[in-house]
Amino acid sequence: MIKAGIIGSTGYAGQEIVRILLGHKDVEIVWYGSRSFIDKKYYEVFGNMFQIVDATCLGENMDELAEKVDVIFTATPQGLCSSLVNEDILSKVKIIDLSADFRIKDVATYEKWYKIEHKSPEFIDEAVYGLCEINRDKVKGCRLLANPGCYTTCSILSLYPLVKEKLIDPNTIIVDAKSGTSGAGRGAKIPNLFCEVNESIKAYGVTTHRHTPEIEEQLGYAYGSPIMINFTPHLVPMNRGILVTAYASLKEKVDYDTVRAAYDKYYANERFVRVLDKDVCPETRWVEGSNYVDVNFKIDERTGRIIAMGALDNLVKGAAGQAVQNMNIMFGLPEEEGLLMAPVFP
Amino acid sequence: MIKAGIIGSTGYAGQEIVRILLGHKDVEIVWYGSRSFIDKKYYEVFGNMFQIVDATCLGENMDELAEKVDVIFTATPQGLCSSLVNEDILSKVKIIDLSADFRIKDVATYEKWYKIEHKSPEFIDEAVYGLCEINRDKVKGCRLLANPGCYTTCSILSLYPLVKEKLIDPNTIIVDAKSGTSGAGRGAKIPNLFCEVNESIKAYGVTTHRHTPEIEEQLGYAYGSPIMINFTPHLVPMNRGILVTAYASLKEKVDYDTVRAAYDKYYANERFVRVLDKDVCPETRWVEGSNYVDVNFKIDERTGRIIAMGALDNLVKGAAGQAVQNMNIMFGLPEEEGLLMAPVFP
Amino acid sequence: MIKAGIIGSTGYAGQEIVRILLGHKDVEIVWYGSRSFIDKKYYEVFGNMFQIVDATCLGENMDELAEKVDVIFTATPQGLCSSLVNEDILSKVKIIDLSADFRIKDVATYEKWYKIEHKSPEFIDEAVYGLCEINRDKVKGCRLLANPGCYTTCSILSLYPLVKEKLIDPNTIIVDAKSGTSGAGRGAKIPNLFCEVNESIKAYGVTTHRHTPEIEEQLGYAYGSPIMINFTPHLVPMNRGILVTAYASLKEKVDYDTVRAAYDKYYANERFVRVLDKDVCPETRWVEGSNYVDVNFKIDERTGRIIAMGALDNLVKGAAGQAVQNMNIMFGLPEEEGLLMAPVFP
Amino acid sequence: MIKAGIIGSTGYAGQEIVRILLGHKDVEIVWYGSRSFIDKKYYEVFGNMFQIVDATCLGENMDELAEKVDVIFTATPQGLCSSLVNEDILSKVKIIDLSADFRIKDVATYEKWYKIEHKSPEFIDEAVYGLCEINRDKVKGCRLLANPGCYTTCSILSLYPLVKEKLIDPNTIIVDAKSGTSGAGRGAKIPNLFCEVNESIKAYGVTTHRHTPEIEEQLGYAYGSPIMINFTPHLVPMNRGILVTAYASLKEKVDYDTVRAAYDKYYANERFVRVLDKDVCPETRWVEGSNYVDVNFKIDERTGRIIAMGALDNLVKGAAGQAVQNMNIMFGLPEEEGLLMAPVFP
Repeated sequence: MIKAGIIGSTGYAGQEIVRILLGHKDVEIVWYGSRSFIDKKYYEVFGNMFQIVDATCLGENMDELAEKVDVIFTATPQGLCSSLVNEDILSKVKIIDLSADFRIKDVATYEKWYKIEHKSPEFIDEAVYGLCEINRDKVKGCRLLANPGCYTTCSILSLYPLVKEKLIDPNTIIVDAKSGTSGAGRGAKIPNLFCEVNESIKAYGVTTHRHTPEIEEQLGYAYGSPIMINFTPHLVPMNRGILVTAYASLKEKVDYDTVRAAYDKYYANERFVRVLDKDVCPETRWVEGSNYVDVNFKIDERTGRIIAMGALDNLVKGAAGQAVQNMNIMFGLPEEEGLLMAPVFP
Repeated sequence: MIKAGIIGSTGYAGQEIVRILLGHKDVEIVWYGSRSFIDKKYYEVFGNMFQIVDATCLGENMDELAEKVDVIFTATPQGLCSSLVNEDILSKVKIIDLSADFRIKDVATYEKWYKIEHKSPEFIDEAVYGLCEINRDKVKGCRLLANPGCYTTCSILSLYPLVKEKLIDPNTIIVDAKSGTSGAGRGAKIPNLFCEVNESIKAYGVTTHRHTPEIEEQLGYAYGSPIMINFTPHLVPMNRGILVTAYASLKEKVDYDTVRAAYDKYYANERFVRVLDKDVCPETRWVEGSNYVDVNFKIDERTGRIIAMGALDNLVKGAAGQAVQNMNIMFGLPEEEGLLMAPVFP
Repeated sequence: MIKAGIIGSTGYAGQEIVRILLGHKDVEIVWYGSRSFIDKKYYEVFGNMFQIVDATCLGENMDELAEKVDVIFTATPQGLCSSLVNEDILSKVKIIDLSADFRIKDVATYEKWYKIEHKSPEFIDEAVYGLCEINRDKVKGCRLLANPGCYTTCSILSLYPLVKEKLIDPNTIIVDAKSGTSGAGRGAKIPNLFCEVNESIKAYGVTTHRHTPEIEEQLGYAYGSPIMINFTPHLVPMNRGILVTAYASLKEKVDYDTVRAAYDKYYANERFVRVLDKDVCPETRWVEGSNYVDVNFKIDERTGRIIAMGALDNLVKGAAGQAVQNMNIMFGLPEEEGLLMAPVFP
Repeated sequence: MIKAGIIGSTGYAGQEIVRILLGHKDVEIVWYGSRSFIDKKYYEVFGNMFQIVDATCLGENMDELAEKVDVIFTATPQGLCSSLVNEDILSKVKIIDLSADFRIKDVATYEKWYKIEHKSPEFIDEAVYGLCEINRDKVKGCRLLANPGCYTTCSILSLYPLVKEKLIDPNTIIVDAKSGTSGAGRGAKIPNLFCEVNESIKAYGVTTHRHTPEIEEQLGYAYGSPIMINFTPHLVPMNRGILVTAYASLKEKVDYDTVRAAYDKYYANERFVRVLDKDVCPETRWVEGSNYVDVNFKIDERTGRIIAMGALDNLVKGAAGQAVQNMNIMFGLPEEEGLLMAPVFP
């Protein structure tokens, strides 16, 4: 039985790790960390866990944690994981960080977009970017895993075959993304109140959203040279779900069959990436509560552009589900263990 | 491996049976019945099932079904199950009917409230009312199970200890219930359009809703003599969930501890009924996607009334989940098999 | 031109007063008070007011206000208005208080339910309870108006004809109320976040909600002797709207025509109270954005109870609209001035 | 007093014309046309109009209408207005068509995208495209007005200054649009049911949506030569509102001040177009229920692209409000008459 500790277990992503691990036959959660709710029963914070989880929230004592658990999930704000990690801890326990601290290889880029100083740049090289479908082999042996961002996962998986196979002009990529409100976290802020979000949609972080460099870096690796994109996130009045609508100019003579073959090449054997039938557009309702990401594309012959689309549940494949998928790979378990729940609809 | 057939698999409740049985290790679905979508792939009707269910929708040939399966779920409109059932079929296969056809023992009452003639009254006596927590023993051996209504399950479980222990005046019961919109089914009707339901709440079926006699009959059995109640359902702009707020006059000298003891007496050992801590009110968000029903109560010393409350997911404990729970009991499986998924939040 | 000042103009009710007065031809707002946003442009707080309101938020200097305006609206937390009011101010300006400070005539009752000491009990007798349809004559000459609560307005108007005409047993009244989330205010609290409210319904303040004594006091006046009720509010995932479903035992031999005649007697000439056609239930979507309250009732012959229902927009007839209606009466203007906007649907 | 008739008054747009005209001091509605609800009281179709509109729904007898009214609004499916219009009718009455029949000057383009034959191409030249802010002068004298589409209005007004002033490369325009569900109409279809729309977002009509050629034609006029764009609409779980996020490559050396000056040039004097302050993004909540369209832009120095954004209420400025604005211009009334209601929030 793998023993797991969760730092930040009372955020939405942290709670989703709990929900998923409760259905995982090889893992036991032994540490519910929460700086805000120390000494509270976990079910007092999340009533759904009443009579399911009896644990009390603890702090974030890493040394103690490293003795007690085999894996630590950090579902915490940027800067925390990098301030806690050190060689001693990494020698005892595997860390899966859901924050951005170890996602970006270039420290300067990280510090520019996140506007904070990196606390432990010496571990960035070692950290593996855990987009399972693309980095599976590297994930296997790693000690420190950087779990991708929610927008990032959806954006990259939607575009990867196009970029990797060089079917599009990489300078023309525009990613227009839409997210449910759980992506904004559980902090008590006026803009996230029900009456402010409900019955409205807005763009935010236009040209400045922090997932931009993460998408660019990974797509750049896939293409073989740096890529710059436009990324615009939007806040949608729903709890869960991310939809990505991405635009790019197709290279000449690339037709439907070629593109379809590229998607099939990379995803036909992927359990959690579903390439939809022709002309079927991804919808977030079809992936809610599950680890699936649905992708598809449409070619516009008139303008020569391709519209690549993807949908996932931001808390599952966009956060907790992918974290558990990475954990499975890191510990040599079947990759889909604990993750085969069907999407919940309606 | 138990082989299951579902008639009406393309309604919301039918689809929820599919979702739950996909996670049930002892059951295989071999028949996806759907009068409206015959010959269509099931995933074309419910996109969440893409690459999960490859089956094609079939009709409702009961004779063929009876040969092929061990259990038939009928998630169909009133009057269908009772028109299909006969001794030959019941001798070969167990039937779990999610419609109201066999819920009410008094045919006249059924025909009065449902305004249709009962097609096979000869099986009413045999049919077992499948409110698992109350009728568990009878469910065990039965061939024909009447799965309770969604409002009914929530109303009865909220009130049962009070009625059974005669702690309230049974003539004072008022049940004010609120339901998510999936309870209205998947029919294409203007009142169920997004823009009609969203941003509104209304009562409907006031004094005439068909779950009224079902609640009355069962509470009457518990009390030992007939009971008449007021039941008022409301439509709430959310997908899932039923909340019951029930009012009754407490008998004299009944205090908190007495009532709490009654709830504990009936529910302390029930896996799926959670009696909440004092002063914590049930909320539908805490049970969504799960088979739990949360109940609690509050005593108003000023008026001498008790307010009993309950919350469940109308598609799970209010329909498909309870149907599977009944199936487990009928087939001698662990009652919670396939039903232990934690509630999905947010 | 009447000059108006609003203290608490950056809450939801305060902003609704602004919206309504912008369409009122006889009023000019000259003071946008807001403790939290002093020196900010009003449109920075509420983007809908961009290029419509150019004013900057001010504090709550009552003496200065009393010199500058003819009427002050206080849309503030309990205890503020009563701490600001004094004879000098009342001699110069009319005050319409949207808080509960002057709604309840019995100080002890106020202090018991609100758990604060009343700051100026000497003005309670003078204050007029501004339920326009019932207290119109008293409103005319008053200096200090206590604007009724949102739940209260809906509850009383739904039940008034029954109580006033003594058609029901007053000891049997149960009010089950459902409110949109704007009623919870604009404070940054976790329970009011989008993801916490969306897709859920709950009861709250069961047996302890502060609108209870207000409803009881007013219904008691109507009946001629004290009345005790049960009042249970619920939080509904929608922005605006209150629905009341009230239950009571009808006195013997009271039939539909008698009850209908009672409703018509009090409301047939009321512009903002719409008694719906027989069997039509109020729905909050039909009153949204307007000052209307829709009421109706249904008699249950089986149980001898009547179900009285009412729907209104909590921010309009439940707060700002009624405040303006009261202002119109107090200043001798046509009562409906500025309030005739049709409900916005969908 | 202008007499108005509305054909298609029981759709969402038709009802919004009613709501707006009820607050218009110079217009009286004398004909509520509705093929589906003939002989029904209008308030039975839209309960918000109870005791406000007493009229009964009528058919679409154009000859009778032409005798009785001064202006006809056709809020009907494509193909109806063009099948009803003729010289005799146009000689007696002005027509404002909210369908697409007369929006596109090139018949072949219309027939290709709408897949129906145009019934009266002889009137296309005469018809004026009623985007008020751009075609105001032509609107003044016209008899047959083609009211722009909802997506179109938002897209064009967001991009117009950039295109007209040639600040962007017209071949790089991508319009990603998001709409509330009222845009899908009031037809009883499964995809528009509450449970299907709620908690989900999807793209639809990708590369094929009919507003594409309309946007292209109008932007082409502005630029002086044909333009081809990508237009992708999305369905958002909210009742009202359209948000447009448009992308284009800026021409060299175009900076913020230049762009801002362009927006101010065209919109500074426009009552209903609000150019927001720098860095403030449009949100649909700030325009709901009103005739305003909020626009703004952001320049991405990294990629050389501009992101132009716009938000409006699809039923007001995107349909009924603009229709009334056009009517005001056509009849020589103040353009803003009946349209100055502030946005309703929350």
